[in-house]
Amino acid sequence: MKTRFVLINTSHAGNVGATARAMKVMGFGDLVLVAPRWANVLRREETIQRASGALDVLNNARIVATLDEALDGMTHLCATAMTPRDFGPPTRAPREHFAALLGGADLLLKSELTAPAIQGREADFSSKPGGVAFLFGSERFGMQNEDVYRCHVALSIPTDPAFGSLNLAAAVQLIAYDWREALGGFSVQAAVAESPEADAAAVAGMLKHWEEALAAIGFLDPASPKKLMPRLNQLFNRARLRPEEIHILRGVAKAMSQKAWPVPGEMGAPAKTPAKP
Amino acid sequence: MKTRFVLINTSHAGNVGATARAMKVMGFGDLVLVAPRWANVLRREETIQRASGALDVLNNARIVATLDEALDGMTHLCATAMTPRDFGPPTRAPREHFAALLGGADLLLKSELTAPAIQGREADFSSKPGGVAFLFGSERFGMQNEDVYRCHVALSIPTDPAFGSLNLAAAVQLIAYDWREALGGFSVQAAVAESPEADAAAVAGMLKHWEEALAAIGFLDPASPKKLMPRLNQLFNRARLRPEEIHILRGVAKAMSQKAWPVPGEMGAPAKTPAKP
Repeated sequence: MKTRFVLINTSHAGNVGATARAMKVMGFGDLVLVAPRWANVLRREETIQRASGALDVLNNARIVATLDEALDGMTHLCATAMTPRDFGPPTRAPREHFAALLGGADLLLKSELTAPAIQGREADFSSKPGGVAFLFGSERFGMQNEDVYRCHVALSIPTDPAFGSLNLAAAVQLIAYDWREALGGFSVQAAVAESPEADAAAVAGMLKHWEEALAAIGFLDPASPKKLMPRLNQLFNRARLRPEEIHILRGVAKAMSQKAWPVPGEMGAPAKTPAKP
Repeated sequence: MKTRFVLINTSHAGNVGATARAMKVMGFGDLVLVAPRWANVLRREETIQRASGALDVLNNARIVATLDEALDGMTHLCATAMTPRDFGPPTRAPREHFAALLGGADLLLKSELTAPAIQGREADFSSKPGGVAFLFGSERFGMQNEDVYRCHVALSIPTDPAFGSLNLAAAVQLIAYDWREALGGFSVQAAVAESPEADAAAVAGMLKHWEEALAAIGFLDPASPKKLMPRLNQLFNRARLRPEEIHILRGVAKAMSQKAWPVPGEMGAPAKTPAKP
């Protein structure tokens, strides 16, 4: 789906660069600046430094004089505005709104529907938008009311009521992330191939091995085992052992036994307690 | 739940300030710096500028020499590392992991469970952690392997495979956001009290009013109405009209009729077509 980020009256070059980077890591590339403070903001040193490699986003960015010029092809306009207003589009959290916008009818049905209105509500999101624009106001003053009035929704990122001061580029990053996730998201590459878990038989066999070894080194008294083995069983259950870890633990048990009975072939023999006089 | 953000070997003062701000907007305040590049980083001008009011987070932050000193009271360690590694904790997307960590048993059941292992898997997340630490490596080199090895999970924020260069403070912002949302989230204050939708009877009454007015101004030919009124009905259904909007639209209809028949009391009279000769 066509997605555009629109920065209106942005003051800080660093925020423009950081916005480009924030967009690019989430796979977006369409950036339009409406009347930024610096006419050369796309080429300023701080912009390029904070963009950190997202230079194609800067190179493809457009600078326009009015919001109207920024919105060609866009059908669904999302204001990002924190200030309460006397009038305007409904305020929504991004995740909730994106789910509804992309067809999450279940979310709509959860809301306070009255029977006669159901048909209207369903129709509202019956087709996905052709292009979605996210509008961000200036660092100091946010969005102007007249710009908010024309939007379909005011997205509000849920922040601490006592400190809602979200940096502009940070807001772009969060919206880009939530929108990308709503669109299906990127996959996470597992750094390590995860092996399957060892089955219960393998765990039980290892524990039997440990029981003998712990008796051999004198830690477990077979005559009074208490709850030692069930406790170890619970510990290893929580650890969800992998086959190679079973192997390691069996190796430890073997080494314990060998320490107790240095002569080969004696593993599993009863513990060497001194013969009683 | 106790939550701590740990920055390891951070180079840029601006990132420390932006991290404090990113934490605070999501309601977190426990920041520990392990061997930062600048010993006075908490008091540097760039730090304070980028913190933008999150000075209490900076004032309460600790600087320590080793990761060990940063982890007192923490029971669940989350690495944030992009680099694939030969060995280490499982890699997970933050949202998925947080849901599982906080009791989302349904997520666990969705994964490739083998019957004997179910008990073990369930037990793994049977109790919530006492304290969660998020570890972030240096801007240039990320986290050291030895630091990743001791973590319970490697969180990987899903980014564009072609450009995964997430700024450090942006990563903190996303993790803080997902973690806050997983913990229940802050609520979004509706800027405008939303009125309920007008019911179907109100819409039908308004449409009847419009039908008369459109006939009065000569736009609708009652003898050949085509599909005009059903089209308007669909349009207004999609708009999910509010009662005050019904009022506005009835006002428009009234004004149309009055323009057509300036004499009071004539509303609803047949359109004034010149008498045919």
